[in-house]
Amino acid sequence: MVTTYYFVNNEIKKLSLKELAQALQGSEGMLWVDLDAPNEAEEETVLVSLFDFHPLAIEDCQSGATEEGHLPKVEEFNDYLFVIFNPVENPNSAENQNISRGVEIRTSQLSAFLSRRALVTHHYKPLRSIQYTAQLLTKNPNLLGRGPDFLFHLIIDDVVDNYTPLLDALDETVDRMEEEVFRSPGQRTMVRILSLKRNIQTIRRVAVYQREMLNRLSRGEFGLITSDEMIYYRNVYDHLVRMTDLAESYRDIVGGLLDAYLSVTSNNLNRVMKVLTIISTIFLPLSVITGFFGMNFHYLPGLDWEYGALGATIFMGAVAIGMLWVFKRNKWL
Amino acid sequence: MVTTYYFVNNEIKKLSLKELAQALQGSEGMLWVDLDAPNEAEEETVLVSLFDFHPLAIEDCQSGATEEGHLPKVEEFNDYLFVIFNPVENPNSAENQNISRGVEIRTSQLSAFLSRRALVTHHYKPLRSIQYTAQLLTKNPNLLGRGPDFLFHLIIDDVVDNYTPLLDALDETVDRMEEEVFRSPGQRTMVRILSLKRNIQTIRRVAVYQREMLNRLSRGEFGLITSDEMIYYRNVYDHLVRMTDLAESYRDIVGGLLDAYLSVTSNNLNRVMKVLTIISTIFLPLSVITGFFGMNFHYLPGLDWEYGALGATIFMGAVAIGMLWVFKRNKWL
Amino acid sequence: MVTTYYFVNNEIKKLSLKELAQALQGSEGMLWVDLDAPNEAEEETVLVSLFDFHPLAIEDCQSGATEEGHLPKVEEFNDYLFVIFNPVENPNSAENQNISRGVEIRTSQLSAFLSRRALVTHHYKPLRSIQYTAQLLTKNPNLLGRGPDFLFHLIIDDVVDNYTPLLDALDETVDRMEEEVFRSPGQRTMVRILSLKRNIQTIRRVAVYQREMLNRLSRGEFGLITSDEMIYYRNVYDHLVRMTDLAESYRDIVGGLLDAYLSVTSNNLNRVMKVLTIISTIFLPLSVITGFFGMNFHYLPGLDWEYGALGATIFMGAVAIGMLWVFKRNKWL
Amino acid sequence: MVTTYYFVNNEIKKLSLKELAQALQGSEGMLWVDLDAPNEAEEETVLVSLFDFHPLAIEDCQSGATEEGHLPKVEEFNDYLFVIFNPVENPNSAENQNISRGVEIRTSQLSAFLSRRALVTHHYKPLRSIQYTAQLLTKNPNLLGRGPDFLFHLIIDDVVDNYTPLLDALDETVDRMEEEVFRSPGQRTMVRILSLKRNIQTIRRVAVYQREMLNRLSRGEFGLITSDEMIYYRNVYDHLVRMTDLAESYRDIVGGLLDAYLSVTSNNLNRVMKVLTIISTIFLPLSVITGFFGMNFHYLPGLDWEYGALGATIFMGAVAIGMLWVFKRNKWL
Amino acid sequence: MVTTYYFVNNEIKKLSLKELAQALQGSEGMLWVDLDAPNEAEEETVLVSLFDFHPLAIEDCQSGATEEGHLPKVEEFNDYLFVIFNPVENPNSAENQNISRGVEIRTSQLSAFLSRRALVTHHYKPLRSIQYTAQLLTKNPNLLGRGPDFLFHLIIDDVVDNYTPLLDALDETVDRMEEEVFRSPGQRTMVRILSLKRNIQTIRRVAVYQREMLNRLSRGEFGLITSDEMIYYRNVYDHLVRMTDLAESYRDIVGGLLDAYLSVTSNNLNRVMKVLTIISTIFLPLSVITGFFGMNFHYLPGLDWEYGALGATIFMGAVAIGMLWVFKRNKWL
Repeated sequence: MVTTYYFVNNEIKKLSLKELAQALQGSEGMLWVDLDAPNEAEEETVLVSLFDFHPLAIEDCQSGATEEGHLPKVEEFNDYLFVIFNPVENPNSAENQNISRGVEIRTSQLSAFLSRRALVTHHYKPLRSIQYTAQLLTKNPNLLGRGPDFLFHLIIDDVVDNYTPLLDALDETVDRMEEEVFRSPGQRTMVRILSLKRNIQTIRRVAVYQREMLNRLSRGEFGLITSDEMIYYRNVYDHLVRMTDLAESYRDIVGGLLDAYLSVTSNNLNRVMKVLTIISTIFLPLSVITGFFGMNFHYLPGLDWEYGALGATIFMGAVAIGMLWVFKRNKWL
Repeated sequence: MVTTYYFVNNEIKKLSLKELAQALQGSEGMLWVDLDAPNEAEEETVLVSLFDFHPLAIEDCQSGATEEGHLPKVEEFNDYLFVIFNPVENPNSAENQNISRGVEIRTSQLSAFLSRRALVTHHYKPLRSIQYTAQLLTKNPNLLGRGPDFLFHLIIDDVVDNYTPLLDALDETVDRMEEEVFRSPGQRTMVRILSLKRNIQTIRRVAVYQREMLNRLSRGEFGLITSDEMIYYRNVYDHLVRMTDLAESYRDIVGGLLDAYLSVTSNNLNRVMKVLTIISTIFLPLSVITGFFGMNFHYLPGLDWEYGALGATIFMGAVAIGMLWVFKRNKWL
Repeated sequence: MVTTYYFVNNEIKKLSLKELAQALQGSEGMLWVDLDAPNEAEEETVLVSLFDFHPLAIEDCQSGATEEGHLPKVEEFNDYLFVIFNPVENPNSAENQNISRGVEIRTSQLSAFLSRRALVTHHYKPLRSIQYTAQLLTKNPNLLGRGPDFLFHLIIDDVVDNYTPLLDALDETVDRMEEEVFRSPGQRTMVRILSLKRNIQTIRRVAVYQREMLNRLSRGEFGLITSDEMIYYRNVYDHLVRMTDLAESYRDIVGGLLDAYLSVTSNNLNRVMKVLTIISTIFLPLSVITGFFGMNFHYLPGLDWEYGALGATIFMGAVAIGMLWVFKRNKWL
Repeated sequence: MVTTYYFVNNEIKKLSLKELAQALQGSEGMLWVDLDAPNEAEEETVLVSLFDFHPLAIEDCQSGATEEGHLPKVEEFNDYLFVIFNPVENPNSAENQNISRGVEIRTSQLSAFLSRRALVTHHYKPLRSIQYTAQLLTKNPNLLGRGPDFLFHLIIDDVVDNYTPLLDALDETVDRMEEEVFRSPGQRTMVRILSLKRNIQTIRRVAVYQREMLNRLSRGEFGLITSDEMIYYRNVYDHLVRMTDLAESYRDIVGGLLDAYLSVTSNNLNRVMKVLTIISTIFLPLSVITGFFGMNFHYLPGLDWEYGALGATIFMGAVAIGMLWVFKRNKWL
Repeated sequence: MVTTYYFVNNEIKKLSLKELAQALQGSEGMLWVDLDAPNEAEEETVLVSLFDFHPLAIEDCQSGATEEGHLPKVEEFNDYLFVIFNPVENPNSAENQNISRGVEIRTSQLSAFLSRRALVTHHYKPLRSIQYTAQLLTKNPNLLGRGPDFLFHLIIDDVVDNYTPLLDALDETVDRMEEEVFRSPGQRTMVRILSLKRNIQTIRRVAVYQREMLNRLSRGEFGLITSDEMIYYRNVYDHLVRMTDLAESYRDIVGGLLDAYLSVTSNNLNRVMKVLTIISTIFLPLSVITGFFGMNFHYLPGLDWEYGALGATIFMGAVAIGMLWVFKRNKWL
């Protein structure tokens, strides 16, 4: 589905594909063309016939149909920039918030062509940031009037804002895992820690790639982003710096959790071994004592003695208490 | 609350907002405007109406109201610098000195706008460095006379000095943990080591971000900091280099503590296992010997012998001593 | 075997070595000379006599006959580029897909000389990418008409595409190892993890070296690659960035698997030790009780009592149940 | 104490503070002013009144009075360089050679101001390198005649040479720890390894900071070091490169020692566990056998048999030997 | 011993020191002066009197007499380059091939001065690469005719080739250690792994230092190496890149071996513990059963029963088999 927003004379018009072709002939007005899950014919019409983008860039757009999509990148062509972003599809959906339960974080692909007069966005899956920017634009047509580079910044700013629920979910999961490791580490704990670690790595990689990209966009490297707008891209860059920073501190914590998990396991083993040692150290000698008086020697001292059994019992109790006392003194209990 | 210091004719005057507006119209005198926990109206008046700072910079100021605040950064606008610092709120408070007890280090946010004639500082929480610099200024008005860049250096120098109590507390905690790991490692030791590690990482990150910022400030990258003052910023930079260096050496030590903890746990396990092995190795054979003479065979040698029991006892003693001797020779005791 | 493709007058001709010599005398037409497992005479004729390439470059070509071959590199000579690539020989062969069974990934060597008019490729083993490009060329002669640099990009694009089956096999192996570590870690698991780790490192190194090379090729560093074609090399570069990224995320996961393996082993030890401890803690005391009543004292309480044995049995049952209850309460079961 | 060496007319004169003031008025001759543990008045006179150094540089000098001192640094002022070095106080003292016994390496602070005509050195503790250079100078006055930059190079060259005894002590300690880990790892081994690791880190940091400094000094970055002398600073730089290299290889070795220590501990545990398992596996079955024949059944086979006890003994021996044979075959012994 | 090769009129002459002095006066011909284990007089004559090299460079030459020698470096003087290399002394000697048996890799020092007309090499130990190049030169005088920079490249190319036997020995050792870790890890395995790791680090450091040096030599940084010869230095650089790459992949593998060793040890512990647990779990209950029927109660059920002993035996067998069945079902055997 292709939606075209045309800003001219301070208002926004939606154009059909035909009108779009005419508008492109002219030289006034700003355009935003959004390809939402386009079919091949639409891609052919818009990307090839109308805008004549480079075949390799279009190919990169289409790699959004694969599971992983294309890594974030920015590439400069003669009169347009080609940018790929990795937004989260439904940042507030239950699935994304379930990353604490081992669900893997998945990103989708948003491709954009940015020229002097037009912004063309392309995505196969519905994106909250696109819908949100379209609503903003309907209320305030001038957002497009400030140029496609300003409108584009609104989209990617929202894309980056939409990582926040994921980061919050990660933060919460890190806390919960910490609790779990020290309170009740179990068979599944290690699986969960590794899954958490992987999600943190995914988020970190997405943040780092896009941070580098925004750094280039906000540095004036590309003429298509006017110096007035650069500060807005710098702002998005700042958010990605913070996100990288958070992801890296989570990674440190999870690294510590792995150590902690091994040490807790090791401590548990020590505790179990101490119980075994104490039990053995008390009852093995007692066993020998009862065995001693169970020997069938005819002349065994004390057997005939009236308080023999009592004496043996007291002796055994003394041995047990003595052993416990040794443990206590050596702080083994 | 807005406090305005106006240096003109070699003295300091406190201005109302109205007078501030007038002073800004004129072209003489230096200004320091401090917004201490300002309400929205004050922010609107000072930052927007009077100084007309960039909306994104103001937004960054306001992120100081969130728990984490904004990471340190410096950004150059047309005629002013925008700087964010992460000071410690009450460096000498009991809470901050309790980091040895697992309390997490928290920093707050100090935002500053630095122009030729004015320094505007903005913070939501009372800051010791601001109070201290205001006192200095009251005693010595000329500190502002040397320009807002000199005054600003005084503030951030004190901000950096205020990390010292935290570093001392970390240092002490590192020593105490080392003691604990080797003397009495317990259930909570690992928790404390991880909490310490995290605090060191926090301090390190704060130091590294601000060090990079000071490096840029002291290198003459920004025209607003005069070359005479650059040496003072270099001095603050040096302090942050030392702080990073300390944080990194603490991190190394804590990394070693984790290894040490595991090795101590492992050594304890070995010791417990040795006790168990020695006990078992002595008493299991004795048990078999007493069992042997407890068998009900009619023709068991020695049962009738007058010294049979004595002989068996001596034999058992010999076995026990022999086993201990083997242990001793193999250095297992 | 030497195959020569000559593009002139919009069609492709295959030339003999003699015709090649003549074509090189002239100044029109584009050439692709492929040396597939050439003998020494062919190498001498083509590389030395006809093209007069640098002896060191030819020596590097010939290192393709050794087992490891030469690392990827690009080197600029006066009027030609010398490039070495490390393709996979038969990407879809059973052997390469068996890397999940510990087979080591092996790459071969493709050397290429790229000049204004000619591309010379040299390899000792048959390469799928060469065959594939030759087929393309037969169908569409103009591929060579766009210049040797365009044709060369087709070859290396296919070389990089051919890593995909290996990456898929690695991906699958990583998943399978994860399953194995948590379900049924055995004697061979560690061997397989290490073999997997090594294959990932091999792939990563190949990707990184070639990525750096493509980065240089696509940046306009070498005059022989025209600016129109640079975008195609950039495309290959992008694929290698993705490949490096995948290899690095696999490496992270395998690093986690090693930790997981140790923790699973450690957990198993704990479980076994618990069984031992429970058994010992229940039966050692029972043993002492039976031993007690097996002592030969004449005056042992309860021996004559009609329900003595029953009482002792009940007592022993009570001790066993009590022990189990203690375990349950301490969550040791 | 202030000592002033004045090189004029090819000889060295020692000047009083008054004469120094006069010499500074003139324009001929070279000066070396050494402040050895100066009091505040001396610092005031020399650094402030006579030379008028920057207050921040003087403050950095004075941080030499704190325990850690200032990190190495070089800073360029208008007409002088300010340099801080971290020499070892008494490189050959018993304490420094005792680092193998866990003594922490401590460095002190040497500050120097280097201008066209004068070298001012400042230190609170007596330094071997200063004494040594003073002796050299007395014998050969021309060392100062070649300029303060040449004299300064002599001092820091000796400072760096004086790290050698520490490096030798570290080397020896590394060897001894390696011996200890594999021969007789004990309770204190881990403590000693960690202390060694820390000392290596200290040395490494000192070397790295000073190496970077010397790199800048020898690169012609500062006009005050003439191009003829740069080669001498390069020589000191080379020594620090070697020192960093050594420190890094020691660090690698100590990292390996930690692994080795854990593996030795783990091996010891295995050995102890094997002894326990062998003992248990032999004597627990024997215990059951003796218990069997100790049962009070009236009809127990063999009790009446004349060779019953002998048979049982032989049977028990056979069981024990059988068990040992199983162990042997499985290589558990 | 000083050997001087003089190339003039297309032939090689060996010169005495006197003739050398004359040749240096003139301006034609190329020279190679080799100082093989020179005494001090020879060093004085050649390096100081005849060539007048910088004292610091000569000092660096002489550090080749110490055990470690000087790290590789290149330094530019007015009209000559000073280069230090670390060759292996006797690459094919038994000792060097014994690195698999824990022998430490040792390198020696080759110093060289390279000027327009002369190459001076200096080494205290006989070097295979020098002998080999001298032989080549005798056969083909023109090798020196192409300039000292070409001749020097021949020497260092052979120096780098001579690392190959070491790399092969390391490769073989890595394979053998892998075998050992998984087949028969013993007391000495860890020692051998650490020794291997250290040798790999040595090789890696030598390769990295020399690679960086060759990179500078082959980049046209030094005017003394003509652009025609740079390609030859690039070739040596390539070999060192491959060597670094190999050393790094060996390091990765050895890192994996350490993990593997710990996991194998840990697995062995698990196996031993399982045996202990199985033995205890079977025989401890049996012991209690025999103890039960060994109690001296007058009214113990079954004692009088004719098949009592048989019944007890069957019961005991059933218990043992039941336990084994539980183990089997839980896959503990």
